[in-house]
Amino acid sequence: MPNEAETEAEPDPEADEGIEDDNNRLRAMALQYHRRGSVCTLGEGLGAGKLSVTPTRRLANQLDLSLAYSPGVGACCEEIVSDPQKVSEYTARGNTVAVMSNGTAVLGYGNIGPLAAKPVMEGKAVLFKKFAGIDAFDLEIAELDPLRFADIVVALEPSFGAVNLEDIKAPDCFVVEEECRKRMNIPVFHDDQHGTAIVVAAAITNALQIVGKDIKDVRMVCNGAGAAAIACLNLLMDLGLKRSNILVADRTGIIHAGRSGLNKYKAPFAVETDCRTLEDAFIGADICLGLSSANAFSQEMVQSMAKQPIVMALSNPVNNVLCFPFLFRGALDCGASDITSEMKMACVKAIAELARRASTSDMIAKAYEGNASSPSQASTDFGPNYLIPKPFDPRLLTAIAPAIAKAAMECGVAKSPITDMDAYCEQLTTFVYRTNTFMGRLFQRAKQNVKHVVFAEGEDERVLQAVRLALDDNLCKPILIGRISVISRKVEALGLDIPLCLGRDAAIPEGTVEVVDMQDDSRYARYWQEYHHLCQRKGINPATAREGKRTELRIPTGGTPKYCRV
Amino acid sequence: MPNEAETEAEPDPEADEGIEDDNNRLRAMALQYHRRGSVCTLGEGLGAGKLSVTPTRRLANQLDLSLAYSPGVGACCEEIVSDPQKVSEYTARGNTVAVMSNGTAVLGYGNIGPLAAKPVMEGKAVLFKKFAGIDAFDLEIAELDPLRFADIVVALEPSFGAVNLEDIKAPDCFVVEEECRKRMNIPVFHDDQHGTAIVVAAAITNALQIVGKDIKDVRMVCNGAGAAAIACLNLLMDLGLKRSNILVADRTGIIHAGRSGLNKYKAPFAVETDCRTLEDAFIGADICLGLSSANAFSQEMVQSMAKQPIVMALSNPVNNVLCFPFLFRGALDCGASDITSEMKMACVKAIAELARRASTSDMIAKAYEGNASSPSQASTDFGPNYLIPKPFDPRLLTAIAPAIAKAAMECGVAKSPITDMDAYCEQLTTFVYRTNTFMGRLFQRAKQNVKHVVFAEGEDERVLQAVRLALDDNLCKPILIGRISVISRKVEALGLDIPLCLGRDAAIPEGTVEVVDMQDDSRYARYWQEYHHLCQRKGINPATAREGKRTELRIPTGGTPKYCRV
Repeated sequence: MPNEAETEAEPDPEADEGIEDDNNRLRAMALQYHRRGSVCTLGEGLGAGKLSVTPTRRLANQLDLSLAYSPGVGACCEEIVSDPQKVSEYTARGNTVAVMSNGTAVLGYGNIGPLAAKPVMEGKAVLFKKFAGIDAFDLEIAELDPLRFADIVVALEPSFGAVNLEDIKAPDCFVVEEECRKRMNIPVFHDDQHGTAIVVAAAITNALQIVGKDIKDVRMVCNGAGAAAIACLNLLMDLGLKRSNILVADRTGIIHAGRSGLNKYKAPFAVETDCRTLEDAFIGADICLGLSSANAFSQEMVQSMAKQPIVMALSNPVNNVLCFPFLFRGALDCGASDITSEMKMACVKAIAELARRASTSDMIAKAYEGNASSPSQASTDFGPNYLIPKPFDPRLLTAIAPAIAKAAMECGVAKSPITDMDAYCEQLTTFVYRTNTFMGRLFQRAKQNVKHVVFAEGEDERVLQAVRLALDDNLCKPILIGRISVISRKVEALGLDIPLCLGRDAAIPEGTVEVVDMQDDSRYARYWQEYHHLCQRKGINPATAREGKRTELRIPTGGTPKYCRV
Repeated sequence: MPNEAETEAEPDPEADEGIEDDNNRLRAMALQYHRRGSVCTLGEGLGAGKLSVTPTRRLANQLDLSLAYSPGVGACCEEIVSDPQKVSEYTARGNTVAVMSNGTAVLGYGNIGPLAAKPVMEGKAVLFKKFAGIDAFDLEIAELDPLRFADIVVALEPSFGAVNLEDIKAPDCFVVEEECRKRMNIPVFHDDQHGTAIVVAAAITNALQIVGKDIKDVRMVCNGAGAAAIACLNLLMDLGLKRSNILVADRTGIIHAGRSGLNKYKAPFAVETDCRTLEDAFIGADICLGLSSANAFSQEMVQSMAKQPIVMALSNPVNNVLCFPFLFRGALDCGASDITSEMKMACVKAIAELARRASTSDMIAKAYEGNASSPSQASTDFGPNYLIPKPFDPRLLTAIAPAIAKAAMECGVAKSPITDMDAYCEQLTTFVYRTNTFMGRLFQRAKQNVKHVVFAEGEDERVLQAVRLALDDNLCKPILIGRISVISRKVEALGLDIPLCLGRDAAIPEGTVEVVDMQDDSRYARYWQEYHHLCQRKGINPATAREGKRTELRIPTGGTPKYCRV
């Protein structure tokens, strides 16, 4: 979610250097994460990039081949010819979303084109799968004309159950979306607009509740009049915000009734006002929304706002995964032909409610803590620091998808309504628990009471990345088993910044990670012997224990030590 | 490969009925194979259709999320902006093929449209993965105009490493392919044309060798002037066939110099000839090629051909998986920008050589036998009944892909030439062995010397399908463990036609499958006790053995009985 403050701050050279280091580290890790693993890209998990297309059916012999392809597959074609709805029964279409972009407005980069946009679109596709089990495929399209772009999207309708438009510049994105929604019978959703709008609307709904103000009365100033800004304003007006209470600024200044040359998307926000600068507009405003460049708001401007002001500084949001996977899940599962305003409102409500429910369950609060990117962000008490849920909140899917499906069914766009909503929710719950990763749960447990964690495969790059994460989140004091020469070389190559120290009888310096060499019998023996002692009844003999081929995590939780395999 | 004879045969009502039964069984199995497994399509393997898009990287926590998506992913975008070739290093593009169709010429159905064509295109996509580890995604496109269709393909170039055009009617397919090849910098290959042509050319190369004729001298008659026919003729001319030795017939009759109104693809085949009918053209021909409708050739026509005639009756070929996965593998791996004539010729040569090599290795001959769709087809001696390899021949990938890559490198279209060809071949071999299914190997072994195979999970639908396959191929005499009431219900529901018989002390009637109920201690005991006896050292206790939760195949190979887990 948005977390980059726009408020001006005194420059701090040392802090800047730290940020620079962090950026370099993240950059090195990201490149490593995406890089292909071998000369040839055969096989799962070895190829470059983040996604692969895999068969879901057996293809082991001639019979399978004749079912999956000619001649058997013809039976499926015949069924679809006689009833087009059956395409959802015999093909993957009903669970497949296209992520489409021409790369004209990518992240903070702007118009970098479709080829360079591909890593982002692949990322979007894997988030769909991870968070909602949706098969999403990215299509980067070399077409700048919005109407011709729309023609391509429309022509691809037979391939997909829904379309997620992504990173298309304004005002082209409005044209593309309008045209596609008009001509297509599946949901078309521009996430940069509506995904952002939904999350912002949920946050504002909750913030207004905290400060005890009514959306019908509040005054808002919005810096930025791009795709996301206009979508936010439109959705907030659906929720009750009065158009006459909104002041919008674009690069030219405040949009007012006296300005000429406004496009049809900005024109509706041209109100009668004497304000001409952002500074003017801030005075007495209840909410300010930053959807332009960073550092546009000053402390003085915020101080000039009304009492208990709501500041939403959203430039370059980190991600809004909070909404789209779950919204599409619900839309696909009821065969929605569109994402209507009612469905978006239902989504706002579901997200806002979820945040208000957060503090009631101890278990979920803990899940939160384990998944937070840093301990300081792990507040789970509904309030000024916690307005919307975190992306890894396991309840998002079960809260949003059914709400979307219900709304679609109520407003008549569901082509295959869900008849048993309880069974549906149960299936969603099963999915959430099945995909909830072991690592996440492990770290939750670790965080509760741990001192040391021993990583047996200390030379493995994935292990080193996990260690960096554990250090970042202050989860444990890692001990690495392996050769310090190999480990230090890999740590450097990965840009991981893990200070290492060879295990000796003397105390390990604060802030460094102990490395224990397997050849160093005096130190290593205590680990494998302990492991053997614990696992001998599971068939682990001393030789296997000493070899330590699996990554074994030792988590001494107060009394009894425990080993967990990852 | 093509296997539906066009030669007229006396109608045999009983045989027709048998074919009808087989068709219904295949139809029921194919629908079952594709059908979705649950109300909601969440999760792998449960959804409808045959493919899914899956992440290849870990996505377990906030750090992973920030690498796969914003902000970390931006590093990959920057790299591609500065060097577009790096898209293959940081995205899946270099291993991804689009299977694109507008559904105007699907299998035997003709113009059924893009939606109904989807099961076929998904099938094609999964074959790419199964046979060559390529991530292929199907795009069904609602666009009938060939130039506008080409515009869409061209615009999608940033998304894919290559394009496989599929099931587009002639002559539109020529226009689409020409236009795309001209405007795109990645391979565009219309498989119906060139895949067919390559396999036909390989078969003719070998057939000519057997009959001892030279392609430069032979006369050919070709019935059909569609996409596949014209591609075959063009490729055969590249191999030395003289244009003046070819007679082509379309629906109007023989294409000759006196005919008007021929399109530019047919016109080059208008030769000076007195022939006006197919019957005339057959007289004295060395080769006849059937690429039109079935039952077009009569026995009399074939008898009028030259001595040792070569008859290729190819209408509605079952599949030509023999070529495309391996050809694309080689093209992708060297970053080919096109599939040139030289590459196609290299493919013909590799396939033809492979068939000639077939009889030299006993091991591969056995592998063949196990994979043949029926025992009578399992000839592996190069000769009239064995001109080209079978799709499951494990050597196809290692023979074709390097040949394609070499040809691409030689003719200068390889953007990233393979520097270590030995290492490349080794990787291909590893892939083949890794994906070679256990089931296939098991059946090979079974075929060598088996009498009975015991299927412990006899009530499992997948097991029942495997049993049907085993019966089809006369691989073994299956014994099913389970309740006969449940099994017979499932057999019927699946349309599998497996005659069942409850195991008794009396002999089991010939042609029926014995069912042993787990409650029937007198019969079942011998199986689980034998299993326990064999596996007790692997930690299987009597209770587990009796439970039989895994499917255990017992293969009594003469002396010692063996158990294998599947």
